[in-house]
Amino acid sequence: MISGPSGVGKGTIRNALLPRVDNLQVSISATTRKPRSNEVNAREYFFVSEDEFRELIAEDKLIEWACVYSNLYGTPRDFVMKSLEKGLDVLLEIDIQGAMQVKEKMPEGVFIFIAPPSIDELIERLCNRGQDSQESIEARFAASQKEMSYMKEYDYVVVNDNLADAVKKTESIIIAERCKIN
Amino acid sequence: MISGPSGVGKGTIRNALLPRVDNLQVSISATTRKPRSNEVNAREYFFVSEDEFRELIAEDKLIEWACVYSNLYGTPRDFVMKSLEKGLDVLLEIDIQGAMQVKEKMPEGVFIFIAPPSIDELIERLCNRGQDSQESIEARFAASQKEMSYMKEYDYVVVNDNLADAVKKTESIIIAERCKIN
Repeated sequence: MISGPSGVGKGTIRNALLPRVDNLQVSISATTRKPRSNEVNAREYFFVSEDEFRELIAEDKLIEWACVYSNLYGTPRDFVMKSLEKGLDVLLEIDIQGAMQVKEKMPEGVFIFIAPPSIDELIERLCNRGQDSQESIEARFAASQKEMSYMKEYDYVVVNDNLADAVKKTESIIIAERCKIN
Repeated sequence: MISGPSGVGKGTIRNALLPRVDNLQVSISATTRKPRSNEVNAREYFFVSEDEFRELIAEDKLIEWACVYSNLYGTPRDFVMKSLEKGLDVLLEIDIQGAMQVKEKMPEGVFIFIAPPSIDELIERLCNRGQDSQESIEARFAASQKEMSYMKEYDYVVVNDNLADAVKKTESIIIAERCKIN
């Protein structure tokens, strides 16, 4: 699990990790949010309707799900389990609500908190991303502050003050976890 | 702590790690063994007499010590503590007896077991090293078999089937441990 406040760069870290670490399968979430222009169904997300999403919940087919800024996001259990059965490690990049649900259901997972170097930095990143409205930025910032308090529930923290360093640290955590005894 | 059976390559891994990982201080052991031709006092070891070594023990100045093939080896506590106080991580490359003593005194340490890809491979390496007598090789091999049973006492295992991979894994463990929460 890589997780952390909105705008902290967890998606960027995930994308940089994938070509560097072998036997790693990125989890693909289901969401009711509308695709952005560069997003493709079943690549970034499984884009589903709200009705379809409710059915996934009813059939217990999501490991976790959450409502974030009026959109539903969830992790399809089948896709994760099939990847694990193939001997792959599954990389989930999810928000903190989702990570906490996964921790309850899969405490054996490895939970990495991606932290901003500072709250100031986080605001700047959210503003510069340019894909969010002012209102959305304010909502995200308020949520981020609260989310920082969840850091202690995680196994590792990677401060994303420098992308290359943050990617190397996250890669190192995956490699080290594979060397663990017990 | 990087530790493991004789001939497994822990010294080579240590030497490769040093230029790659920042804030890392290699621990220098005291020993009563005679220096090899390329070894320098206070660089590879503090070479001391048996009397001096007994004094270090009596004054509780060693974190661990052991008698291996009739020579005494030990880790001077002062050198380790001063390095830790400077904010450095201290890398100990020690045999398994020593690692188990350190584990008792410093359970917060990180214990990495360097394992041979196979016992056959280990014999070959001991023979090819060319610095040990036949008798010494046989004694080391018998000890190595017993030592493998200690693997479960460690936090991590790194199989040294390929030096570059083993170094990267060991480096990753150090980086990951620095990201740990709690």
